Amino acid sequence: MTDPIAPARSADLAVPVALAPTPAGLLKLSVGNGSPATLPDLTAEAVRALGAMREEALQYGPLYGIDALRDGLVRLLAEDGVRTARDGIIVVNGGKQALELVARALLAPGDLVALTAPTFLTAISIFRREGATFLPIPLDGEGMRVDLLEAAIVARRAAGLPGPRLVFDMPDFHNPTGVTMSLDRRRRLLDLAEAHDFVILEDDPYRRIRFEGASLPPIRSLDPTGRRVVGVGTMAKMLAPGLKVGWVDADPALVRRIGALKMDGGSSPLTQRIVADLIASGRLADITRAITAEMRAHRDALAAGLERHVPALRFRRPAGGYFLWGELPDGMDGDVFAEAAARHGVALFSGVHCFPGEPRRNTLRICYSVCTPAELERAAEALGRAYAALAAG
Amino acid sequence: MTDPIAPARSADLAVPVALAPTPAGLLKLSVGNGSPATLPDLTAEAVRALGAMREEALQYGPLYGIDALRDGLVRLLAEDGVRTARDGIIVVNGGKQALELVARALLAPGDLVALTAPTFLTAISIFRREGATFLPIPLDGEGMRVDLLEAAIVARRAAGLPGPRLVFDMPDFHNPTGVTMSLDRRRRLLDLAEAHDFVILEDDPYRRIRFEGASLPPIRSLDPTGRRVVGVGTMAKMLAPGLKVGWVDADPALVRRIGALKMDGGSSPLTQRIVADLIASGRLADITRAITAEMRAHRDALAAGLERHVPALRFRRPAGGYFLWGELPDGMDGDVFAEAAARHGVALFSGVHCFPGEPRRNTLRICYSVCTPAELERAAEALGRAYAALAAG
Repeated sequence: MTDPIAPARSADLAVPVALAPTPAGLLKLSVGNGSPATLPDLTAEAVRALGAMREEALQYGPLYGIDALRDGLVRLLAEDGVRTARDGIIVVNGGKQALELVARALLAPGDLVALTAPTFLTAISIFRREGATFLPIPLDGEGMRVDLLEAAIVARRAAGLPGPRLVFDMPDFHNPTGVTMSLDRRRRLLDLAEAHDFVILEDDPYRRIRFEGASLPPIRSLDPTGRRVVGVGTMAKMLAPGLKVGWVDADPALVRRIGALKMDGGSSPLTQRIVADLIASGRLADITRAITAEMRAHRDALAAGLERHVPALRFRRPAGGYFLWGELPDGMDGDVFAEAAARHGVALFSGVHCFPGEPRRNTLRICYSVCTPAELERAAEALGRAYAALAAG
Repeated sequence: MTDPIAPARSADLAVPVALAPTPAGLLKLSVGNGSPATLPDLTAEAVRALGAMREEALQYGPLYGIDALRDGLVRLLAEDGVRTARDGIIVVNGGKQALELVARALLAPGDLVALTAPTFLTAISIFRREGATFLPIPLDGEGMRVDLLEAAIVARRAAGLPGPRLVFDMPDFHNPTGVTMSLDRRRRLLDLAEAHDFVILEDDPYRRIRFEGASLPPIRSLDPTGRRVVGVGTMAKMLAPGLKVGWVDADPALVRRIGALKMDGGSSPLTQRIVADLIASGRLADITRAITAEMRAHRDALAAGLERHVPALRFRRPAGGYFLWGELPDGMDGDVFAEAAARHGVALFSGVHCFPGEPRRNTLRICYSVCTPAELERAAEALGRAYAALAAG
């Protein structure tokens, strides 16, 4: 007799490393959680949702989300230059479910997905689960090397191989590198999508967490067809992760197809109503401003600490977002460094997990959102000790 | 050039009918929503979650759910005779996500799923999406005809065909028929699972909504191995749908595999904390008792109304749950009746959608949870007029 609960699929069934709990007692530079200092007081919104709006908040919600939130997201997206309407939005359980649903809607097993190397590590797991194969594209200080993407597609076509079905990117304050894609690259990527018939999946969690400089238009705001780019957003980084409110904004036909794939029957209307009221009252913008100010102070403390205590670590100072990408000297392994860091009291991930193909092993993914500036200063000091121990041994 | 957002899959991509909105102005006998009269006041629990417990409620929650809720569910299940522990529970976004995750974990495309005909209509969509094929089994007043399931398996084996990988059922107050499976059948189904090597998926949303008679043990409480039965539960029917809190209770190895498939990274800790506190304080039991009393009054009003106004409709008086199954005289079509009912002001579904194979067309799925007893009396009267119009025409 076989094992009754043996797996039916041979696919990779490991939990993405970023979803594993961080060991207690370590300074947490491992995950992009919210800063405890800026978790907002949402009591008033919840009291209204569970009082005046109880019949909405506690019943099953509509499959595509409550109208008040869909309309609020339309207004929010309009502020960024994205023109959409209620039927171009579906509310989902956070950004990760959004990515999963888009992948399920657009990818068939074996389809090629192009993405930066490194990229958002959970996205790798999500696309892999749908049977995707990967075309890793380098990135630099202006984001994805669109010229190299084009060259790779042209080379594949010449060899009789298909191009990518989907190009995934996080153009603003990219996780894990903090890099923002230049306007010129955004335009060239869109041209390439038209020329080579792929869809751009624009994951946009960090756009509003900008410390300096002017915002760049989302790629989907540059698309005259409205069909080349699918947007994914979340309240996790600009409000709070625990509400699990995310969305997909896309062509209405694709939104309907995603609705048919969202087999949970619709997200919680309670958390949706809280977010809808925060958008309508303008309080969301205040909360996001407070988070941004806090994150700027975190970035400053970490960058100063690393410059002082780990001068051998090369990094680019992010102008927004939650993440900083570190490169150790050649030959020093990120996994070995992460283990040494844990022994010195700091939890962080090697960058190895962020590569869809062959990893660069001397890399680190450092998240500065959770720890206070003082803790980040201490963490940098501890990382300096870890580095010294490794360099000596 | 192809359509950039054309579907990648040829699978059925229709939204299950029960997830489509009910037209406004109709008496809603179409969906198992909560009764507005018993939607509980959860303000105090939410205020605590967003105040004292803010750091838990607004951060990302653990992938498998917050410990307080997993432990609370262990206690709740123990009341029903189900022995499990924290690592045998994963919290998910409602019962439908639970079914989807179990299906994804256990089914490969082409696998056979046995289920009652009729059955929970959304389950049909969920299993079909995973590529399942169906073995429909009749049911009577004691639930699934396990003898006919056995005969079908034996016949398939004799023909060189595989038996079912999974047997799905809702043994307590089955949606849509309201039937409860007898203890004898529960035992025989479990024996059959051992003999023919399948897993039983026991969907258990209505167990605590019992109007009369003594509870029967869940099938999984009878399984000495703990590996033949996977349980699925939800707070939707015994508390409120809008919290979207459900769970899977199963062998810990399967729970871990489901965790790896739950790509949204974990359900909202805010709604989880509210439910955990309701379990711990004992308030959940009070709320469920109030819902049960309300539903009993609904059942009574609907049954009396149907007997009086639609005497030709045969139905079995449910002893619990939210649903009643009606059979029209042979030759009268459920879809045609549902259209006539809508013209007379009542929304309900033909039973046709509840069949995984060839439907019995003269059937109706009637849900009595949403309307008040007075409205149900009016609805029965309207259904009587709809019936008379059809019988006359």
